[in-house]
Amino acid sequence: MEKKKQISMAVIRRLPKYHRYLRELIKNDVDRISSRELSEKIGFTASQIRQDLNNFGDFGQQGYGYNVKELYNQISYILGVNKEYKTIIVGAGNIGQAIANYNFEKSGFHLTGIFDVNPKLIGLKLRDIKVQDVDQLEEFLKENSIDIGILCIPKNAAQRICDILCNNGVKGIWNFAPVDLVPSKDVKIENAHLSESLLTLSCLMNS
Amino acid sequence: MEKKKQISMAVIRRLPKYHRYLRELIKNDVDRISSRELSEKIGFTASQIRQDLNNFGDFGQQGYGYNVKELYNQISYILGVNKEYKTIIVGAGNIGQAIANYNFEKSGFHLTGIFDVNPKLIGLKLRDIKVQDVDQLEEFLKENSIDIGILCIPKNAAQRICDILCNNGVKGIWNFAPVDLVPSKDVKIENAHLSESLLTLSCLMNS
Repeated sequence: MEKKKQISMAVIRRLPKYHRYLRELIKNDVDRISSRELSEKIGFTASQIRQDLNNFGDFGQQGYGYNVKELYNQISYILGVNKEYKTIIVGAGNIGQAIANYNFEKSGFHLTGIFDVNPKLIGLKLRDIKVQDVDQLEEFLKENSIDIGILCIPKNAAQRICDILCNNGVKGIWNFAPVDLVPSKDVKIENAHLSESLLTLSCLMNS
Repeated sequence: MEKKKQISMAVIRRLPKYHRYLRELIKNDVDRISSRELSEKIGFTASQIRQDLNNFGDFGQQGYGYNVKELYNQISYILGVNKEYKTIIVGAGNIGQAIANYNFEKSGFHLTGIFDVNPKLIGLKLRDIKVQDVDQLEEFLKENSIDIGILCIPKNAAQRICDILCNNGVKGIWNFAPVDLVPSKDVKIENAHLSESLLTLSCLMNS
């Protein structure tokens, strides 16, 4: 169960979707499912599914299919959703506020601090957390063990904040700023570049 | 210039990033760039870049590199950023409000209507647009030619709204609801599944 192979980035990107579909199956009391049936639901080919899920051990048996609960547990483990994370948001503008109010708590992501540079936002309360001056970020990070920094700031400020986060124990950055950050140490970056997602849509509409 | 090959989804997903880097190069008065130099900036391999950009015609010349402006224009054309789009937002909660306040206008995406089911939100003004009752959505779509519907609603309501959009002339859906929609006709869907992006980050942090 606990063994971990090196899993490719392409597979990692598909895992949350598997996770979501398996959770639905459990809700609907489905105990097992074949790669063909899963394929019809999730939209990947059956062969792609078998190849992907092969990474995590022997959950599929010919003629039996996958044990839904076991597979879900294993994918949860690989996704790290069985853990708890302390998060902070830097940038309390539109996106920052939306993320603050989005309920990620139930998935184990606990919002612990919010920072901004704008005096009009400092002191504002979002979900009982007061927005602090970004000048206090470094001290806050030194006093609290924060796992994830969520960057919702303009691109010009992003690398500087990224550096502060990397140098003060943060392990992952969820980056909404439209820029590619260069992390130091072994900090992981996941971009949520909304403009690029919208351009992908307009590209699809024109192709 | 105008020829269009079938471009793979993997390349389409990389195009907005090329677009962003090329825009920066133009800002910095760079006229041409080799695949090797571009590789150092953008993080794809030089061979990947040559292969990707080969899709769009002969912009690269051995020993000369790419003509930045021409390549930028061609990618802009393929992304459809030279066009204007009328958009509506369905769901004026946290994410919907953030998207409404995000400045996509300068990229040609013009917000034309906002809809919600919540009486507390109906009548609220976001960027001079009054939130309307979602019951008026269908009529609005019949009277206005809308290109893109932006769904910021709970998953349970999403397919029903998707059907209304698809049946009333919308050509693309930008979907923030954590569910895979089944479009009718030739409507394109681009998902912005924030929870899945966050799970990708926790997965990377645990790998």
